[in-house]
Amino acid sequence: MSDLFIGVDLGGTNIKAGLVDREGALVNKVSIPTEANLGRERILENICAAARQAAGDTPLGDIDAVGIGSPGPLDHVTGVVFRSPNLKDWTNVPLAEEVTKRLGVTTFVDNDANVACWGEYWVGAGKGCSTVVLMTLGTGIGGGIILDNRIWRGSTGAGAEIGHMVVVADGEKCGCGGIGCLEVYASAPATVRRFVRMISGGRDSSLASAVAEGGEITASMIYEAACAGDETAKEALEETGRYLGVGVTTIANVIDPEAVLFSGGLAGAADILLPVIRAEVRKRALEPVTENLTIALGALPNDAGVIGAAGCAMDRLGSDG
Amino acid sequence: MSDLFIGVDLGGTNIKAGLVDREGALVNKVSIPTEANLGRERILENICAAARQAAGDTPLGDIDAVGIGSPGPLDHVTGVVFRSPNLKDWTNVPLAEEVTKRLGVTTFVDNDANVACWGEYWVGAGKGCSTVVLMTLGTGIGGGIILDNRIWRGSTGAGAEIGHMVVVADGEKCGCGGIGCLEVYASAPATVRRFVRMISGGRDSSLASAVAEGGEITASMIYEAACAGDETAKEALEETGRYLGVGVTTIANVIDPEAVLFSGGLAGAADILLPVIRAEVRKRALEPVTENLTIALGALPNDAGVIGAAGCAMDRLGSDG
Repeated sequence: MSDLFIGVDLGGTNIKAGLVDREGALVNKVSIPTEANLGRERILENICAAARQAAGDTPLGDIDAVGIGSPGPLDHVTGVVFRSPNLKDWTNVPLAEEVTKRLGVTTFVDNDANVACWGEYWVGAGKGCSTVVLMTLGTGIGGGIILDNRIWRGSTGAGAEIGHMVVVADGEKCGCGGIGCLEVYASAPATVRRFVRMISGGRDSSLASAVAEGGEITASMIYEAACAGDETAKEALEETGRYLGVGVTTIANVIDPEAVLFSGGLAGAADILLPVIRAEVRKRALEPVTENLTIALGALPNDAGVIGAAGCAMDRLGSDG
Repeated sequence: MSDLFIGVDLGGTNIKAGLVDREGALVNKVSIPTEANLGRERILENICAAARQAAGDTPLGDIDAVGIGSPGPLDHVTGVVFRSPNLKDWTNVPLAEEVTKRLGVTTFVDNDANVACWGEYWVGAGKGCSTVVLMTLGTGIGGGIILDNRIWRGSTGAGAEIGHMVVVADGEKCGCGGIGCLEVYASAPATVRRFVRMISGGRDSSLASAVAEGGEITASMIYEAACAGDETAKEALEETGRYLGVGVTTIANVIDPEAVLFSGGLAGAADILLPVIRAEVRKRALEPVTENLTIALGALPNDAGVIGAAGCAMDRLGSDG
């Protein structure tokens, strides 16, 4: 045993893999296309190829364990992924078993948001904390919860759906079928919808003509406009921050973590979002729970998934035997 | 050792105490006035008197441990209660130490809502579950959370403030200083406020003249009127149920417990509240987390605190050494 682990971050576009040591340092790192549309066998091959490349000169026999952070509902105990909409022919895949067989290395599978949270908890912005919540801000709002040094998966394994806490009881319909979920108010598309509504309502903006022409507006464009002094763009993002602050308030009052961290594409707007989130939480949440609460950007924006997957595998190898 | 424990439920009006065996059966039970206005020494004496009476013929030397469920912010490790507004001269009371000294029996102190949740988890409506949330509905909304067979206290010890999750981002001001908390929409006083507003708005009710005369209206009166066929009273309660359903949705999506249970005075209206709560959760929450979720009344309305305090003491005696 070389005290080395491989972490794999399985995405719809790329598979990232890394060789990680027992202290959480990323020794080597690769990224290859997932080729998600080529189906199950090819995806499995690519996962193994990424792992082999990440191992570099280290023989696979010297790797203690492989950890995979995977999207989709899954059973982390058996390592079976039930489905993943972005991967073709990917139903009830015994991912842990398949990769274990192909690489000859014990492999563990866990939810991608959970392993990213573990990465931040282990060596990122949550280092030193025992209870950490990670909110991933993108097309949706996902997240991971570490309670008392353990991933919280919920009793059905489908818990930690932070984006689907209700923040407006009689609010807008959410894609999940629910009503008034945080995701409807604070995801990247929600920010775009708000911004377009503001423009349609007569507000001026450097992006007004793009909106009028029906061109694609992204959250990044809104952020760039805001940075360039566009007040409407700034307000649209601040309103997103305000709702995130409402969500963090509920997390603080009910779960009472030491840190709430943010990652994902929209977290790139952290310099606008974070001050609003912090102010909102200060205004709303109970004093004892917010006194020492860290609200910050994740420290491993690109590598939390890879490092966390390796870290989870290390942790589970230790505890599962 | 006789495998017997004493549980104490310290309230502002009465101290309930009970002799509880290792299976959670309540062997003997007493209730004496707290005499909260007579100050610290008298309250401590009364706690010990209640414990002695509960022991009955069993010598205190044969009691394995005493558990106290106490209101107010406290440190469950040291057993110090920082303050409790309803108890006179009750600041930084080393409760565990004082009772241990006076009774000669190891004493543990924990939050009253936590121990009530433990009681339901141990031998009540949450029996057989490993993850249970208890919501106590009264003047405020409190609660306890058991995650994976352990009380969840949060990183500062002030967590599990279920009544202060935000359900209406831009809602009414809450007594906690926050905005739009569940407690503002679903506590007993919230139900009364809603009912009075409905009457003032022109709705008819059997209690309309009582409201007009400025008489005291309680949630119990509203419940009784609803049971007698008063539509306005019924609607006021159903609206409370609807907000509770919103709160349970957030709990289900984020925490994903096996059971959400209700106790406290307002839970007496369960036959009206529960169907509304269940329908709201079915409508809103993610399917996998609600499939097997129990939403029910606690099974130990009067004894959860006493039994749970004894059970916590038993658990902590086992794990703390």
